[in-house]
Amino acid sequence: MKKVNVALIGYKFMGRAHSNAWRQATSFFDVPVAPALKVICGRDEAGVRDVAARFGWQEHATDWEEVVRRDDIDVVDICTPGDTHLPIALAAAEAGKVILCEKPLANNVADAERMLEAVRAGGCLHMLCHNYRRVPAVALAKRLIDEGRIGEPRHYRGTYLQDWLVRPDVPRVWRLEKARAGSGALGDILSHSADLARYLVGEITEVCGMLETFVTERPAPEGGRLLPVEVDDAALTLVRFEGGAVGSIEATRFATGRRNYNRFEINGSLGSLSFNMERMNELELYTEEGPESGFKTILATDPSHPYMEGWWPPGHIIGYEHTFTHTVLDLLRAIADGRQPKPDFEDGVRAQKILDAVERASLSRAWESVQGIGDGGSI
Amino acid sequence: MKKVNVALIGYKFMGRAHSNAWRQATSFFDVPVAPALKVICGRDEAGVRDVAARFGWQEHATDWEEVVRRDDIDVVDICTPGDTHLPIALAAAEAGKVILCEKPLANNVADAERMLEAVRAGGCLHMLCHNYRRVPAVALAKRLIDEGRIGEPRHYRGTYLQDWLVRPDVPRVWRLEKARAGSGALGDILSHSADLARYLVGEITEVCGMLETFVTERPAPEGGRLLPVEVDDAALTLVRFEGGAVGSIEATRFATGRRNYNRFEINGSLGSLSFNMERMNELELYTEEGPESGFKTILATDPSHPYMEGWWPPGHIIGYEHTFTHTVLDLLRAIADGRQPKPDFEDGVRAQKILDAVERASLSRAWESVQGIGDGGSI
Amino acid sequence: MKKVNVALIGYKFMGRAHSNAWRQATSFFDVPVAPALKVICGRDEAGVRDVAARFGWQEHATDWEEVVRRDDIDVVDICTPGDTHLPIALAAAEAGKVILCEKPLANNVADAERMLEAVRAGGCLHMLCHNYRRVPAVALAKRLIDEGRIGEPRHYRGTYLQDWLVRPDVPRVWRLEKARAGSGALGDILSHSADLARYLVGEITEVCGMLETFVTERPAPEGGRLLPVEVDDAALTLVRFEGGAVGSIEATRFATGRRNYNRFEINGSLGSLSFNMERMNELELYTEEGPESGFKTILATDPSHPYMEGWWPPGHIIGYEHTFTHTVLDLLRAIADGRQPKPDFEDGVRAQKILDAVERASLSRAWESVQGIGDGGSI
Amino acid sequence: MKKVNVALIGYKFMGRAHSNAWRQATSFFDVPVAPALKVICGRDEAGVRDVAARFGWQEHATDWEEVVRRDDIDVVDICTPGDTHLPIALAAAEAGKVILCEKPLANNVADAERMLEAVRAGGCLHMLCHNYRRVPAVALAKRLIDEGRIGEPRHYRGTYLQDWLVRPDVPRVWRLEKARAGSGALGDILSHSADLARYLVGEITEVCGMLETFVTERPAPEGGRLLPVEVDDAALTLVRFEGGAVGSIEATRFATGRRNYNRFEINGSLGSLSFNMERMNELELYTEEGPESGFKTILATDPSHPYMEGWWPPGHIIGYEHTFTHTVLDLLRAIADGRQPKPDFEDGVRAQKILDAVERASLSRAWESVQGIGDGGSI
Repeated sequence: MKKVNVALIGYKFMGRAHSNAWRQATSFFDVPVAPALKVICGRDEAGVRDVAARFGWQEHATDWEEVVRRDDIDVVDICTPGDTHLPIALAAAEAGKVILCEKPLANNVADAERMLEAVRAGGCLHMLCHNYRRVPAVALAKRLIDEGRIGEPRHYRGTYLQDWLVRPDVPRVWRLEKARAGSGALGDILSHSADLARYLVGEITEVCGMLETFVTERPAPEGGRLLPVEVDDAALTLVRFEGGAVGSIEATRFATGRRNYNRFEINGSLGSLSFNMERMNELELYTEEGPESGFKTILATDPSHPYMEGWWPPGHIIGYEHTFTHTVLDLLRAIADGRQPKPDFEDGVRAQKILDAVERASLSRAWESVQGIGDGGSI
Repeated sequence: MKKVNVALIGYKFMGRAHSNAWRQATSFFDVPVAPALKVICGRDEAGVRDVAARFGWQEHATDWEEVVRRDDIDVVDICTPGDTHLPIALAAAEAGKVILCEKPLANNVADAERMLEAVRAGGCLHMLCHNYRRVPAVALAKRLIDEGRIGEPRHYRGTYLQDWLVRPDVPRVWRLEKARAGSGALGDILSHSADLARYLVGEITEVCGMLETFVTERPAPEGGRLLPVEVDDAALTLVRFEGGAVGSIEATRFATGRRNYNRFEINGSLGSLSFNMERMNELELYTEEGPESGFKTILATDPSHPYMEGWWPPGHIIGYEHTFTHTVLDLLRAIADGRQPKPDFEDGVRAQKILDAVERASLSRAWESVQGIGDGGSI
Repeated sequence: MKKVNVALIGYKFMGRAHSNAWRQATSFFDVPVAPALKVICGRDEAGVRDVAARFGWQEHATDWEEVVRRDDIDVVDICTPGDTHLPIALAAAEAGKVILCEKPLANNVADAERMLEAVRAGGCLHMLCHNYRRVPAVALAKRLIDEGRIGEPRHYRGTYLQDWLVRPDVPRVWRLEKARAGSGALGDILSHSADLARYLVGEITEVCGMLETFVTERPAPEGGRLLPVEVDDAALTLVRFEGGAVGSIEATRFATGRRNYNRFEINGSLGSLSFNMERMNELELYTEEGPESGFKTILATDPSHPYMEGWWPPGHIIGYEHTFTHTVLDLLRAIADGRQPKPDFEDGVRAQKILDAVERASLSRAWESVQGIGDGGSI
Repeated sequence: MKKVNVALIGYKFMGRAHSNAWRQATSFFDVPVAPALKVICGRDEAGVRDVAARFGWQEHATDWEEVVRRDDIDVVDICTPGDTHLPIALAAAEAGKVILCEKPLANNVADAERMLEAVRAGGCLHMLCHNYRRVPAVALAKRLIDEGRIGEPRHYRGTYLQDWLVRPDVPRVWRLEKARAGSGALGDILSHSADLARYLVGEITEVCGMLETFVTERPAPEGGRLLPVEVDDAALTLVRFEGGAVGSIEATRFATGRRNYNRFEINGSLGSLSFNMERMNELELYTEEGPESGFKTILATDPSHPYMEGWWPPGHIIGYEHTFTHTVLDLLRAIADGRQPKPDFEDGVRAQKILDAVERASLSRAWESVQGIGDGGSI
C-alpha cells in the first residue's frame, strides 16, 4: 500500500485531535493509503515532545519551516492559530505538499486568497478541516437533502452556542486578541455554522448582522492588569442563499449553560432536518406522512450510516474526535484517487468572504453582499 | 360579588377561545368579579347562534355597533380580524367600556395610537390579549427573571414556527390579504414572540431584518383563479434591547413539521431559560451549580406555579386554551382593583412600532430604530 | 335532539373533572344527545353547592339514594371513593339508569362482579371511566396497533410513577386506608396502566409481583398521632399476555420528581410505540425504514388525530381534563346508538381480577393466574 | 515509569475495544504505569494479525496457553466468549498474572467461583470489565449517591433494550448457543444492568422473573437448515435489595427500535437519577428545590466530571469505547498502588449468582434468594 509521511504543525487542542485522527483512521478503517506519523512540530519543545510520545509520532520538532520543506514529508497538517496559517501554507505549497489546514483558513480574505493561489500554483491537493461535515449524522443529512427528501430548502437556522466567556474573570487569552485570532465567535464558531449552511443549503449571497462584545476588558492570563477584549463575544447574522432560502446564523460565547451547542435546523418544502452537536449521534428528520408525521430521531450509528462501518454495533455512540478521523480518512481516499478533497481552500476563501461580509455589515449597519457570490465575481 | 356583563365581538377561532375563557375562569378560580356571558356578536347569524348556544351566552347579535353601546354591557372583548379592531375599540371607548382586545392591537401604528388615545380619553380599563404571557411556565420564567435567577439578560432567541402554508395549494385566505390582516407571519406570530421579548427582557430599540414571501400566488378560497399573496410568509429580525441584550426573532409559516413552535431561549449572565409552546407545561432553567449544572425541565404544574392553584394535582398538564382563561382572570382581578391590567393598549402601540420598524428595515435593508424607544420620544 | 339528564355523585377531584367534561363535550363537539347537568350530589352541602354553581349544575343534593332513583335522571355518574361504588351502582342499576363509574370499579372482585350482574340485570348501559384511553395520542396508538403498524406485540412496559408520598410527613389521608381505598398505588394507578395494557396488547393471563410500603405510619390528617398506612406505596408486577407478549407494570407514589409519569412502551415485531402522560399530546412511533429509522414524535394535535377535530388548530395542545370530555362524548354517542360503550363494567371486573392476582402473588411469592382468563372460566 | 506488558486474548468486538483502550489510556491520561501492547492472541491467524497491525500490538499469537504463561507478560486481558474464560483465567492465575476479564465472568456460578479461588490462590490482582461503570455520567451518578444527594434509594428501574434479534431471519450465531454463551439477554446484557444496580444501589437479595424465547429456531449462520435457539431472547426480573429498595431489571433483544438502550432510573428519598447509554454523556438528576424543581440534564463533559480531564473542552462528547479506556486507566492505577481494582472476580461471582437466581426463579415460577446474600452465606 502507498504510504504518506505526515507532518503535523501544532500540538495543542487541535494538534491532539489531529494526532489521534491520523492514528485512529488506520485502526478502524481500511485506508487506501497508509499514513506514517512522521513528525509533530511546536514551539515548546517539552510540550510537543510529550504529545509526540503519547500518540506515537516518530519525531518531534520545533522549527516548522524546516519541517515543511523536508523531502520525506508528503502531507502537512496545519493546526496552529489562525495568524500563522498563511506562512505555513505558503511554504508547504511551495514545497508541493498535500495540505490539510484547520479552519478558519486565514484571518482575512486577502490571506485566504493568497493561500488558495499558492496551492493552485503548487499543484497541491488541499483540504480545509471543517470537521463537523464528517459527523455521521451531518453527512446523513447531506445525503437526505441530495436525495430530495426535504425538497427545496427554505430556512436555515444555525446557532453555535458556547458559554466559556460568561464569567468576567475568564482571562484575556489569545483567542480574544484580534491580531492572533482574527475575530472572536465569528471566526471561531460562526464559521462552522456558515460552513454547514454552505454544505447543506448552498452559497450565501448577502448578510446583515451585528458583532457584540459584552465584556470589554479581562484579566491578563498571567494575572494582574486588565487587557482589552479585541474581538466579538457574539455574532448574529441574517442571510440569503443563492437558491432563495433565507436563514439566521448566530454564534456566541455567552449562552450560559450551552457548552458546545452547534445546532441547525433546515426547513424544506417537503421536510425538515435538525441536528445538535451535543447529541451528535442523532439526526432529526421530518417528512410528511399524514397522521403519522413527526420529527424522527435517527440514531446515526447503524452500518448504513456514513462512516459507521468502521466503528461499533448499532446504538454504540461515537464522540467528538471521530469527526477528525473521518476527515483524515477522506483525505487519504482523495490522495489515493489523486482528486481534490472537499472542503478545500476555495471553500476557505468563500467562508472568509462571508465572515468579511458580516464584519462589513456590522459596521455599515446594512445588508452587505458576499464578495464573489451572485455579483458576477469569481474566486 | 360585583358582576360585569360581557359582550364578545367575534365568534370564530378567537371567539371560541375567549368564550371558553370567560366561562372557565369562574369554574376553576375564585374570581373577585363575576362575569356574565351576556352577548356574543358576529356577522353570520347562524354561526354566532351556534357558538352562543355551545358556550352559554345569554344572547347573540349581529350588529356590533349596537352591542358595544348597550348600557348593560360592561366589558367589550374584541376577537375580530385586525382591520376591525379600530372602529370597535373607538366605539367601546366612547361608551366607556372595559376593553379586552386581541393582538395585534391594530394593523398599523397610526390606528394603534388612535385606539390608545381613545381608551385614555374614555377613561377605560384596557387590556391587550397576549395570551402567551399567561402560560404558567412563561409567568414562572418572568418571576425567575425578576428574582434575578438568570442575572442580566444577554441574548433573546425567539422563533415562532408554523407550517400551514408549506403546500402551495393552501388557499389565499383572509390572513394573506394585506388590507385585512395588515401583515403575515409578522403581525400574526412574530408579534407574539416580540411581546414575550418585551415582557421578559425589555424594550427593543432597533431592528434589522427581512420579510419573505415564498409562494406569491395561491388559489382563491372559493376555488378557481389564483390570487396574489400580499403578506409575508416569513419574517426574520435581529434586535437590540435597551438594557444591552441582543436577540433574534423569527416567525414563519414555512417551517415544515413545526405546528405551533413558539420557542424562546434567554441567556443571562447567571443562567438561562427556554420554553416551547408545544410543550407549554415545561420550562427549562439553567443556573450554575458546578458539576451538577444542567438544563432542568420544570414541569410547571405544581400549585406553587403561577395559575396552577386552579387546576389539577401536580403533573396533570393543561392545554392551550387555559392561557385565555388566565387572561380573563387577570382582567377580572384588575377590574376588582380598579387598576390597569397588563399588557394594555400602550403595549399594543409599542408592539406595533416594532412591527413597523421591521417593515421599514425590510425595505431600507438597514437597521431601523423603533419609534419612541430610546430616541427621547414617548408614547 | 334527544336529551339526557345527568346526576353526578361526588364533587371533589373527579367530580370537578366530570362536571367540566359534561359541559365541555357540548361546547366543543357535535354531540348526538344533549346532556343536561341536572344535579350534583355530595355529603358536604356547602362544598357541593359551590361546585354546582361553578359548573352550572341545575341543582345540588346531599342524598345520593334519593337522587339515583329520581325519574327525571337518565345518567348516573359515580365519582366517589371506591368503597361507595357498589351501593350507588346497585341502586342506579335497579333504577335502570345509564351508569358511568370511575375506576377502579370496586375495591374487590366480588363487589365488581355484583355490580356487573346488577347492570346486566337492569339492562343498563354501563361504562367505566378509564380516561387515559381517551387521550388522543393513546387512541392513535390503538389505531396504529389495530392497523398492524407495529406487528405482533412482544413487550409491554408500563410505569405509572408519582411522588406525592415521598415525604414521611404527608398525612394518612383516606387513600391510605384499606377499607376506603381498597389498595394503594395498585388500585389507584397500576389499574390505569393495566387497563392500557389490556386495551393495547390484550388480556393478561398471569402475574407475579410485590406490594411494598416504605413508610408504614403517617400523621393523622387532623394532626397529632400517627396512623398506620394500610395500603401499598408501590406495586411491581411482571405479566404474561394471552397473545404471547410479556410485560412489566409498575406503579409507585415514591418516584421522586415524577409527578404523573404514566408511561408505556410497546415493542412489536414490526415497530414500537411509547407514550408519557406528562407529554400527553405526543406519541412516539418507531417503524423500520432502513437508514431513516428512528423514533418519531407525533404531536397528536392534527384534525386527523382522534378527538382533535373538536379543539384547536394543529400544534395547540390540550390538557388532562380533556380526556374526561372525550369519555363523556363517547358515552353520549353510545347512548345515541343504544350500544354498550367501552370500557364497561366487564372490563372493570377483569381489571379487578388482575389487581386481585397481584395481591395474591404478593402473598404467595409466586406467579398467579388471573381468574377467568385463559383457564376456561368466563366472566 | 513502571511498565507492564499486556497480552490480550481475543480480537473481535471486545478485542478491538480493549486494544483501543490500552493504547488510548496513555494518549489521553497521565498513567502511573505504562502498558506495552505486547501480544494479541486469537485462533484465526489472519484475523488476529490484522488487528495486531491496526492497533500496534508488538506480536500476535494463536496459542493462548503459551501466551499466558510467558514470563514477559504481566497482564492478561480476556476478551473471548464466556465459555473460555475459565481455562484462560485459571492458567493466568497460576502464572500469577494481573487479570482483566470481560463480563460475564463465567457461564455459571461454579466456574465463576473456581476463577475467584484461583486468583486468590495466585495472589493476583483481578478485575472484571463492566465498562458501563466507567461512563463519566455513571461514575458521576455514583458520586452523587455516595454524597447523599438522592437520599436513601427506593426504586431501581433498569432496562437494557436491544433489537438485533427482531427479525426471524437473523442467524443462530454463537451468542444463541447455551454451551458457548451460557445464556442469552440474561448473561449478555441483563448482567450489565444488574451490575449497575449493585454498583449504585447495593446487593440484590432475591428475584422473581421469567426468561422468554420468542423465536425458537433460526437459520444456521452458514445458511440452510434451522437450528434451535437455546437461550433467552428476553429476561425480566423484579428484585429486592439489601437496603430495602425494590426494583425491576429487564433485558431484551426484541425491543424494536432500541439499539443499545441501557437505561436506569433510581428514585431515592431525596432525589432521582436517570441515565441512558444511547445518550451516555448525559445524566439526569432531580432534587427537591421547590417551584424550581425538575429533572436536570447534566452534560457530563466538564473537567469536574469523572474521567473528563483527559478528553476535550466542555460540551465535546465522548463515545462508547472510551469506557474501556477508563477501565484500563483504573486498572493501571490499581497496579501502581498494588491494590485490588473494582469490580473484581468477587463481583463476578455475585453477578453470576444473580443470573443463577433468575434462572431458578424462571423455572420455579417463584421468588428465589440470591445465594450467599442475606442468608448468612458468604462468598
